[in-house]
Amino acid sequence: MQLLENNLTRSATLKQRREKLAQLLEHPVILWSGAALSRNFPANRYPFRASSHFLYFAGLPLEKAAIRLYQGKLELFVDESSPESALWYGQMPTRDEIAAYIGADAAYPFSELSVVTAEAATIAVGDIKTYQQQCQLLQRQVAPANAPTGIDLELVKAIIRLRLTHDTEALNELKKAASVSVKAHQAGMQATPHSKTEAEVRGAIESVILAHNMQCAYGSIVTVHGEVLHNEQYDYRLESGDLLLADVGAETETGWASDITRTWPVTGKFSSTQRDIYDLVLAAHDACIEKIRPGVEYQDIHLLAAYVMASGLVDLGILKGNPADLVEMDAHALFFPHGIGHLLGLDVHDMEDLGDLAGYETGRSRSQRFGLGYLRLNRPLKAGMLVTIEPGFYQVPAILNHPQFRAKYEQVVNWSRLAKFADVRGIRIEDDVLVTESGTEVLTASLPNKADEIENLMA
Amino acid sequence: MQLLENNLTRSATLKQRREKLAQLLEHPVILWSGAALSRNFPANRYPFRASSHFLYFAGLPLEKAAIRLYQGKLELFVDESSPESALWYGQMPTRDEIAAYIGADAAYPFSELSVVTAEAATIAVGDIKTYQQQCQLLQRQVAPANAPTGIDLELVKAIIRLRLTHDTEALNELKKAASVSVKAHQAGMQATPHSKTEAEVRGAIESVILAHNMQCAYGSIVTVHGEVLHNEQYDYRLESGDLLLADVGAETETGWASDITRTWPVTGKFSSTQRDIYDLVLAAHDACIEKIRPGVEYQDIHLLAAYVMASGLVDLGILKGNPADLVEMDAHALFFPHGIGHLLGLDVHDMEDLGDLAGYETGRSRSQRFGLGYLRLNRPLKAGMLVTIEPGFYQVPAILNHPQFRAKYEQVVNWSRLAKFADVRGIRIEDDVLVTESGTEVLTASLPNKADEIENLMA
Repeated sequence: MQLLENNLTRSATLKQRREKLAQLLEHPVILWSGAALSRNFPANRYPFRASSHFLYFAGLPLEKAAIRLYQGKLELFVDESSPESALWYGQMPTRDEIAAYIGADAAYPFSELSVVTAEAATIAVGDIKTYQQQCQLLQRQVAPANAPTGIDLELVKAIIRLRLTHDTEALNELKKAASVSVKAHQAGMQATPHSKTEAEVRGAIESVILAHNMQCAYGSIVTVHGEVLHNEQYDYRLESGDLLLADVGAETETGWASDITRTWPVTGKFSSTQRDIYDLVLAAHDACIEKIRPGVEYQDIHLLAAYVMASGLVDLGILKGNPADLVEMDAHALFFPHGIGHLLGLDVHDMEDLGDLAGYETGRSRSQRFGLGYLRLNRPLKAGMLVTIEPGFYQVPAILNHPQFRAKYEQVVNWSRLAKFADVRGIRIEDDVLVTESGTEVLTASLPNKADEIENLMA
Repeated sequence: MQLLENNLTRSATLKQRREKLAQLLEHPVILWSGAALSRNFPANRYPFRASSHFLYFAGLPLEKAAIRLYQGKLELFVDESSPESALWYGQMPTRDEIAAYIGADAAYPFSELSVVTAEAATIAVGDIKTYQQQCQLLQRQVAPANAPTGIDLELVKAIIRLRLTHDTEALNELKKAASVSVKAHQAGMQATPHSKTEAEVRGAIESVILAHNMQCAYGSIVTVHGEVLHNEQYDYRLESGDLLLADVGAETETGWASDITRTWPVTGKFSSTQRDIYDLVLAAHDACIEKIRPGVEYQDIHLLAAYVMASGLVDLGILKGNPADLVEMDAHALFFPHGIGHLLGLDVHDMEDLGDLAGYETGRSRSQRFGLGYLRLNRPLKAGMLVTIEPGFYQVPAILNHPQFRAKYEQVVNWSRLAKFADVRGIRIEDDVLVTESGTEVLTASLPNKADEIENLMA
C-alpha cells in the first residue's frame, strides 16, 4: 500500500463521521476489516475487500485490522508487517504512518484489542474466520449482520442513518468510480463491432477499470442474453442482430462503487423493434429521474416505471388494457420483473449485508406482489442519497412460459404481436442518480443512453 | 454453465484417472467442490473456483457438489437448480446432463451423500463452510489438507502420484492456458510504450485473458519494482529507464493454469547494465531448461541456476570469488533469493494446498539454507511433470541492507560496482517446462525471451 500525501480533507471527513456516530450511540463500537480469502490454496488469495462499515470510518482497506470508535475518537488496532515480509511484499507503511494518514487518535498492536472489548457493539463480518474472532474477543455470540440484536442493532441503525446519505468526500469517490465506469462502457461499445464474443467485449470494458487501478464492484454482466438477469458467463458468440447488455461498475481503492448498465446492438444499429422497446425503456428511465426529489417515495418511482412500461407496451400492441389496471395486476412484471433500483455507496447494493434494514424504512417489509417483491429500496428519498434507476424489458422464458403466469395474463398479452419482438431478449438502462435538494444529479450522465447517441458512438 | 457437446475424450480421461486412483487406494473417496465466497455482502461473490482435486476427477467447476469415487466408479452428488433460479441465472444443465457430460456412473441429489460416507477418505477444502460440512458428513474431524492422517494421507499420496505427471487431456488444457498467457504478455509489451502506469499495462495484459474467457490463475504482478517479489499493487507510474516485470498467467475454465514472467524496458530499449543482467538471467534460464530430463533432481536445476548466476555476477564484477564457493555460501541468494520454480497444473503452485507433500519427495524437507529454503520442489523429475523455470535478479533493500547479510557477504560483493547497476531493480524470466522422455517441451516458448526479440516486439 502506497500512502499518498496526508489528505486533510479525508481525515477531517473520517473525524466527522465518527463524531456523528457518537451523537447517535453511546456505546463503544468495534469494527473489523476482515481477512483476504483464499482461492485454490492458502497463498493464492482473492483480492482483499475490507468490510464496508470498516472502510466508512477507517478510510483505508487495511487487512486484519479493527477500529474502536468511542465518543468521537478512533483507536486503530493492527499489527506491523514483519521485517521478513518486506522481502516479499516490500516496505509497508508503519502503524503510526497509517494512523496519521487516517487521523486515528491512537494506534496499537492488534492483540491489545482484547482488553478494550467490554460493552462494545459490532457488526458481523462476512468471512467466517474473522467472524469467529469477533465472537471470541467480544465473548458473546454475535448475531448475523442481517439480524442484529441489542446494542448491535442500535449500531446498525446509527450506521444506516449515516451511510444513507453521502458526504462530500464520499461523493468525490463515487464520482471517480462513475467516471471510470463511463469510460469502460464507452470502450465496450467501441470494441463490440470488432469483437466476436461476449468475453472479448468484457475484456475491453474491464481493462479500462483495471487501467485506472480500480476493481470491478461486482461480477460483470456482459451478454447477448440479457434476459438471464444474473448471467455472469461470457460464453456466447456475438451474432448480427443481437443486443448486448453490459452491467459493469468500477470500485475505487477505498471501496466506493458505481453501477451502470447499457444495452447496445452488436452491429452498431438497432433494428426497428429493438429501437421501439429501447426507447420505451429509456422513457421509463427518464420519467423516473425526472420525478426524483427529496420526499418522494422510491416505491412510487418504481411504480412510475411500471406504469410507463405498461403504457408503452399497450401502445406497441404487446399488452392490452388500461395501463394502471395492468400495473395493478403486475402485468408489467412479465417483462420487467425486478425492482427499479437500489441504494449505491460502498456496496453496489449499499448495506445489503444488513438485509433489508437499510433498504426498507422501519416498519416496512417486502411485498408479496410479483411486481413489487423484488424492490430492494422502499424509503422516502432524501438529499444525499445515491440510487440506481434501472428499468428493463426482458423476455424470460421461465416467466413467459410459466403455466401460472400464462394463465393469469393470457388475455392481456397479445402473444402474436409479442412474437414480432423476438430480437429483443433483454434491455436494461441503468444510471447512478444522486438525490439533491433541487432534484437530481446523474453521476453517470456523460455516458450516452439515447439510441442515436449510442449508434453514433459505435459508428 | 454451457455444456459443449459431450466430449468423449474428456469423459474417457476422467474414467482413466479414477481407475488409476482405484488401483492405488481401496477406500472410497469423497471430494467436495466447495462453494463461492462472498465479497462485501452475501450476494456479491468472488468468481467461484472449485477445489483442484475435485476438478481433476470431475472435470467441471460445479458448485456445492461432491463426487464419490470407488472402485473406478464416479457418483455425482449435486442439487438441481431451482425453477426460480432459471429466472435469474437462466436454464442450467440438469443433473443428468452434467452426469452424462462427465461420464458419471450415477448421480443423486446432494442430500443423498450422507448415506454413503462410511469409511470414505477425503481432502479438506479451503472454504470453512464446506470444510464444516465435510467434518459433519464424515462424522469426524478432517485434518487440514497439508497435514492429513490415516486414510486421508493415503488418498493424498495417491492423488499426488496421479497429479504429478499430466495426461494428454491435462496437457491440452495446460497448452491452452499457456497460449493465451503468451498473447497476454505480448499485448502487455506492445501496450507499454503508450502506457503511463503499471495499472494500464496490467489492464492490457489481463484483458487478453478475459477476452479468451479465462481467468487469471493468480494475482498478477505487473510492476516497475520487481524487487518486491509479491507486489500485487499497480500504483506506480512508468518512468523512462524503468524495467517492468510482469508475472501473469491464465487459467482455463476447468482450472488448468499457466505461469509466465517476462521483464521488459518501459521505453522498449534495455540500458547496457540492464541488458548485462538480463542476458545473465536468461543464460541461467536456458542452462536449466537444457539440463532438464527425466531422472534429474530438480534441486540440482536450482543449484545450476545459482551457479550460472554466481558465475555471471563474478564476470560482471559484482561478486568476487569462485562461483562454486559463492553458491556454497549462498551469496547468489543475495540477488536470487527464491527457488528456481515449482510444479504447475491445476494450481499455479500445483497441490500447494497439501503443503510440501507434493513438492517434496517423501523423506525430504525444506533446507535451512538461505539459498535453498525457498525451493518449492525437491524431487527427481519424471516425464509428464510440468515445472516452471524462473531465475531472477533483484536488488531487495531488505536483503542488501540487512546487517547480518551485509556482514556475512561484505567481502564477496563489490558494492561500488553493484551501485552501477542501480537501474536493475528486478528481473525474472519464467517459462512453463514440460519434462518429456527426451528432455523438455517449453509450453510458453512462443513468447520471446531474448532481449533483442523483446525490443523488436516493442518497436
